[in-house]
Amino acid sequence: MDNIKKCNIIRIKGEEILEEEDIVILEYPLTIFLNDEEIVTLLCSPSALKGLVVGFLYSENFIESFSDIQNMRIDKDKGMAYVYLRDVNRFSERFRGKRTITSGCGKGTVFYNVLDSFKSKKVEKQLPIRTCHIKELIKEFNKKSQLFIKTGGVHSCALCNTNEILIFEEDIGRHNALDKVFGKALMDDIDTRDKIILTSGRISSEILIKTAKRQIPVIVSRSAPTSLAVEMANKLKITLIGFARGQKMNIYSNLSSFID
Amino acid sequence: MDNIKKCNIIRIKGEEILEEEDIVILEYPLTIFLNDEEIVTLLCSPSALKGLVVGFLYSENFIESFSDIQNMRIDKDKGMAYVYLRDVNRFSERFRGKRTITSGCGKGTVFYNVLDSFKSKKVEKQLPIRTCHIKELIKEFNKKSQLFIKTGGVHSCALCNTNEILIFEEDIGRHNALDKVFGKALMDDIDTRDKIILTSGRISSEILIKTAKRQIPVIVSRSAPTSLAVEMANKLKITLIGFARGQKMNIYSNLSSFID
Repeated sequence: MDNIKKCNIIRIKGEEILEEEDIVILEYPLTIFLNDEEIVTLLCSPSALKGLVVGFLYSENFIESFSDIQNMRIDKDKGMAYVYLRDVNRFSERFRGKRTITSGCGKGTVFYNVLDSFKSKKVEKQLPIRTCHIKELIKEFNKKSQLFIKTGGVHSCALCNTNEILIFEEDIGRHNALDKVFGKALMDDIDTRDKIILTSGRISSEILIKTAKRQIPVIVSRSAPTSLAVEMANKLKITLIGFARGQKMNIYSNLSSFID
Repeated sequence: MDNIKKCNIIRIKGEEILEEEDIVILEYPLTIFLNDEEIVTLLCSPSALKGLVVGFLYSENFIESFSDIQNMRIDKDKGMAYVYLRDVNRFSERFRGKRTITSGCGKGTVFYNVLDSFKSKKVEKQLPIRTCHIKELIKEFNKKSQLFIKTGGVHSCALCNTNEILIFEEDIGRHNALDKVFGKALMDDIDTRDKIILTSGRISSEILIKTAKRQIPVIVSRSAPTSLAVEMANKLKITLIGFARGQKMNIYSNLSSFID
């Protein structure tokens, strides 16, 4: 299944009127069932769905490790993911928790409370970063994103060490893209505590909470952060870099981690 | 309360390293209580909060008209909105409904199902549009948005007739911005059935459902639509225009409504 779909449009260019075939980004509903109970429908791009499901369940505290999942089956044609957890009781407990928080923008992370973030642990490992590394990573990141920048409206997200991109995912939602990356990291047993997250999307408090939960010491975005994200990043000792484009970037938090 | 906040950053420009004061967009948590029950925390920009609350309750089917609200009080310092509905039973019914849908991107509209959209009614009134009108509206829209485009990462949304912008709102979330606009329209008793929505954000299925519920015949975005939004727009006889920038735009749906 492709991430794009053809459609007929009328294109206006000044006085020109053209009937053309164009492509639009596919929006795909994926409903997740946990031990036969429907818990959520994600609107996403139909790639890396296994990573998305695992990452979502992890971000939303339904699982703590990949081994919490007994088995999992995705019916791509129907847009259904069936997941069975080993410990059903834990899942029931999870479901009794608070569920009402949504995001001002970016996928509504339905199940957790924004204030939880302040209870998040500080990141254990600091990662001294050099801007030359970030510039190189951003260059590679932009190269990989190019196709989808052209089609419009897809977010990219990557997990990197200081030298290279290890995981790269795309989705119509910046939350989904991040969940796909973390899901893949969880499945491949990659330690995230000394890694960097790159994202094309804005860094809101919810994005920051997700990365903090994975003990990511550095998060870099092509876009802007929000005040709450910067505040939390300072408290949690996370280095937040925004507007990372070409030779420019702004470091918003944890300024002491900066070397040169 | 301002929509922005000052913070100290390190700015990198090539080899230059500058310690500066910068501004970031404020992210403000607003918790809504409905008849003393906490239902949601929105992460938003702290402007037009009354409109946001009314628009959110309307979009999420908690109210059908402004008069459903008996009274409402916003404690801006604490980030709390207390709303009392006339008909408590109706609210309880609403709460028993499905609540698990979230969005791939754009605020998680927690309470409704994506498939509901296909049950939405076709728009009753078609609005024949001329591209010269859209171009003029976009010009005015961009002028109004300029400050926030500069600070980065805020979405704008407007309700217009064919000649002018009637309501203009901004928010860190594209769903919030739209809810603010619809909330204001509901409070001011503006008929939306012959109006146009302009938005800076992508048009996903959830944005389209929201506008369809208000019987909006035309929706215009600076950004891209998704496949699901285009499909729904065709079914619901809504004209969806994307990538409306300067003298250019693409018409994606309901192509027969196009005059010139």
